Amino acid sequence: MSDKKIPYKIYLEENEMPTQWYNVRADMQKKPAPLLNPATHQPCTAEELENVFCDELVKQELNETDRYIDIPEEIQEFYKMYRPSPLVRAYCLEKKLDTPAKIYYKFEGNNTSGSHKLNSAIAQAYYAKKQGLKGVTTETGAGQWGTALSMACSYFDLDCQVYMVKCSYEQKPFRREVMRTYGANVTPSPSDTTEVGRKILAEFPDTNGSLGCAISEAVEKATSQDGYRYVLGSVLSQVLLHQSVIGMESKIAMDKYGIKPDIIIGCAGGGSNLGGLISPFMGEKLRGEKDYKFIAVEPASCPSLTRGVYAYDFCDTGKVCPLQKMYTLGSGFMPSANHAGGLRYHGMSAVLSELYDQGLMEAVSVEQTAVFEAAQQFARVEGILPAPESSHAIKTAIDEAMKCKETGEEKTILFGLTGTGYFDMYAYGAYNDGRMSDYIPTDEELQKSFDTLPKID
Amino acid sequence: MSDKKIPYKIYLEENEMPTQWYNVRADMQKKPAPLLNPATHQPCTAEELENVFCDELVKQELNETDRYIDIPEEIQEFYKMYRPSPLVRAYCLEKKLDTPAKIYYKFEGNNTSGSHKLNSAIAQAYYAKKQGLKGVTTETGAGQWGTALSMACSYFDLDCQVYMVKCSYEQKPFRREVMRTYGANVTPSPSDTTEVGRKILAEFPDTNGSLGCAISEAVEKATSQDGYRYVLGSVLSQVLLHQSVIGMESKIAMDKYGIKPDIIIGCAGGGSNLGGLISPFMGEKLRGEKDYKFIAVEPASCPSLTRGVYAYDFCDTGKVCPLQKMYTLGSGFMPSANHAGGLRYHGMSAVLSELYDQGLMEAVSVEQTAVFEAAQQFARVEGILPAPESSHAIKTAIDEAMKCKETGEEKTILFGLTGTGYFDMYAYGAYNDGRMSDYIPTDEELQKSFDTLPKID
Repeated sequence: MSDKKIPYKIYLEENEMPTQWYNVRADMQKKPAPLLNPATHQPCTAEELENVFCDELVKQELNETDRYIDIPEEIQEFYKMYRPSPLVRAYCLEKKLDTPAKIYYKFEGNNTSGSHKLNSAIAQAYYAKKQGLKGVTTETGAGQWGTALSMACSYFDLDCQVYMVKCSYEQKPFRREVMRTYGANVTPSPSDTTEVGRKILAEFPDTNGSLGCAISEAVEKATSQDGYRYVLGSVLSQVLLHQSVIGMESKIAMDKYGIKPDIIIGCAGGGSNLGGLISPFMGEKLRGEKDYKFIAVEPASCPSLTRGVYAYDFCDTGKVCPLQKMYTLGSGFMPSANHAGGLRYHGMSAVLSELYDQGLMEAVSVEQTAVFEAAQQFARVEGILPAPESSHAIKTAIDEAMKCKETGEEKTILFGLTGTGYFDMYAYGAYNDGRMSDYIPTDEELQKSFDTLPKID
Repeated sequence: MSDKKIPYKIYLEENEMPTQWYNVRADMQKKPAPLLNPATHQPCTAEELENVFCDELVKQELNETDRYIDIPEEIQEFYKMYRPSPLVRAYCLEKKLDTPAKIYYKFEGNNTSGSHKLNSAIAQAYYAKKQGLKGVTTETGAGQWGTALSMACSYFDLDCQVYMVKCSYEQKPFRREVMRTYGANVTPSPSDTTEVGRKILAEFPDTNGSLGCAISEAVEKATSQDGYRYVLGSVLSQVLLHQSVIGMESKIAMDKYGIKPDIIIGCAGGGSNLGGLISPFMGEKLRGEKDYKFIAVEPASCPSLTRGVYAYDFCDTGKVCPLQKMYTLGSGFMPSANHAGGLRYHGMSAVLSELYDQGLMEAVSVEQTAVFEAAQQFARVEGILPAPESSHAIKTAIDEAMKCKETGEEKTILFGLTGTGYFDMYAYGAYNDGRMSDYIPTDEELQKSFDTLPKID
C-alpha cells in the first residue's frame, strides 16, 4: 500500500481491538528464571505469592505456557473507554529531520493517567475486585502508575493506598492531587506508617526516597491488613502480559496497512512499556517467522541493561519481595535525581532481561539533556509534549532516523510514546532555563552497588 | 441504527473530515451588530481593523454572507495531526446516573494545548505567516489559548508574545513552562512593558490582572511593533468560524450513525467553544430544517448572558479595542477568583449574543463547587479529568440527564468537553480539601459595573 494512503493516525475499530493478551514467555525456549523466596532461596510457590498478590495474578505470573490469555469482558469494556490508542505516522517529524525513514509511534498518553500504565492497572484492580478484596497498596515514582491505579480502583470502588517516592511527592504535588481526586490515599515514602519505613527514616532521615523503598512499604502495608494485596506497575511478567495490548494493537494496525517495522524502540525502566510493545513482534522473531531489531533505551544515570549484571537480586530496598533474576545495578543502587522518575529502577523485567541476555534485543543508554532536546524538537513538530521517560525512545528513534538519512535507507521505525509530560513541567523548566545536568555513575559506584547483591548458590 | 452498534468513541476517517468552516452568520436573518470604532462610534472599516488584525482574518471577521469558507490545505494538514477529535458516547456516565438519556460529548482535550483553542490558533498563525508577519501578540487567562498559540507559532516559526493574567501566571507556572517549551515569550499582566499596563499598575499596584487588561496590553504591543498583529482566542466571529470544525465533525459523526441530539450544551466564556459546537446545528435551526435546544452554561460568578445587558461595550479594560454589541457585565466588571479562568470574561461573542437575544439559545449559570462535584463524578466514570471550564457543561448535561430520569424521557444530549484539567490541580486541590467557595455578584455590584458602559447614540 502506498505511503499516500497511510493516515496521520490509525485508530482500530472496536471490533478490531484485541480480545486476548499475548504471553511472550510461551514462545521462549529458554524461560526467565523463577522467582525465589528471599528467605529460603527456593522457587516461590503460588501459595507464597498469594499472600502478596491476587490469586489470579499469581496464576498469570507463573503461566509460561499459554500463548494467549483472554481479556475479561469488563476489562475489554474499560479499554474501550480510552483505547484503541492511535498509531501515529510522524509525518511532521520525518519532514523536519528530512529523513527517508518512516517513523511511527504508538501513543499511550491520551488518558488521564497520562501513560500506558492504565492497561495493567485496570486488569489488576479487576482481579482484586473479583477476589472480593477491600483494596490494594502500591508504590509510585513519577506518579503515573499511582494515577493509573487510582483511576482503576475508583472505577471498581476499591480502596487504593499509594506510597509515593518522597521527592516526587514534593516535586509533583499536582500528580498527587489527581490521585486524590480519584479517591486514593497518598503517603510520601519513606513514611512512619510501616516498620520498614521507620527503619529507613531512622537510618537516613534526609532521604528523598526511592522506588525500592516505596515498594517495601507498600508490600508491608498489604500483608499487614486484612483484605488487601499489593500490586505493581512494572517489572513483573503479569504486567508485561497486560501491556501486550500495546503491541497487539500496533501489530493489527500495521498489518492492516501492510507496514512492517524494521526497528522497534521503547524506553525501559522496569520494562512494562517496552515489553508490552515488542511482545507480539518478538513472538514472531522467536518463532522464526519474521526478524526485527529491538532497542531498549535507558537513562545513562540508571543503566541496568547496558552496565548492570545478570543476577538474582532483591526487587525492593527492604528485601521483603521475592528475588528475581534480572539485569540489575544492585538493590542498593541510589539513582540520581534524574527527571525521568519512571526509569529510576535498579532492575529490569525478568522476561526482557532473559531476551536481552539471549541477544534477541539491543540496549542503549542516553543522557538527560539530549533527551529533553529531542523531547522539545518532537513537541514542536508533532504537537505532543512527551513525558521525560517516553522521550528516551524519541531520542533513539531520531538517532536511528538520522542514520537512515546518512545511508539513504528507508527503514521503518516504530517507537512507543508512553505518555505525556504535563506533570513534568518542573523538569522542562530546568531544561528551558539551562539548569539541567547529566549524571553517569562511575564504575566504582556501580561496583559498590553490585556488592549488595545477594549470594545465591 | 441500534444503540449496540454505537462505539464508545467515534473517530472520523481523514477523508470524512471537514474541508470547510461553516459561517453561521450567513444563515442569520438579523446579523450581529457591527464593530464600532471606539473613538468615532462609527462602524469599523477593514482598513482600521487591519492595523490590529491580519488582513485575511479581517475579511473573515466581516464576512456575513459566505456560508462556507475553505480551510486552507496547510491547516487541514495540521488538523490531521491532532484531529479528528473523538465523539464519545458516555456509556459509563449514563450507567452511573441510571438515566434513560443518551449522552455524547465531543472531546477536544487530546492535544498538548489541552483544549479546543488550537483549532483557531493554527488558523490565525497560518494567516499571519502568509501575510509575512514576524509574529503575533495575545493575552491568555487560564493559559489554554496562550499554549495553543505557542504551539501554532512554533509550527510556523513565528514569534509569539503572550500577556498572561498575573494570577494565572503565578498559579499556573507549569502552563507558562509549556508555552516557553514552545518558544513563546510570556509576560505577567499588567506589566511595565506597555503604557496601558504601567497606567493600570500605577492605579492598582496590587491587582491580580484580568483578561480585559491583558488584551489591552497585547493590542498595544502589536500595534507598536513592525510586523506584528494581535490575535484573540475567543469572542470574535472569526474564532467562532474556525471553531465550527468542532460542530462540523460532531454533526458528520452523528449523521453517520443516525443520531440526532435533542439538547446541545457548551460552557460559555467568550463563546468560542459553544459557538463552534452549535454552529452547524444552529444553521439547520435557522433554516427551519431541524430543531434543537441549545444551552450556554456560564459561571454564576461571571454571568454575562443570564444577568448582563445587551449593549455596546468595550472588549478590553484599556478601551483600545473596537466596541462590540454583546451581552456584557460592563468592562469594569472585576470577576472573582473563579477557578475557571477561561470563563472570567465580562462580555460574550456578538454572534451568540444575537442568537440568545433572538431566543434561539438558552443560558444557565452554575456555581463553582457544584461544577467541581460534577467534574469529579465525571472523571471517576469516564476516565478524563476535565478542565474547570468544560465542567460547567458537564454539570448541566448531568442536570438534564437527571431530568430525563425523572420523566423517563430518552433524550439525546450532546455537550462539548473542551479540555483537560491537568494544569488546574490547584483548583482541584481546593475542592479536595473543602477550601472551595462560591461567589455570586450582588445586583448592586452589577449595576455599578453597568455604569461603566459607553454611551452610544
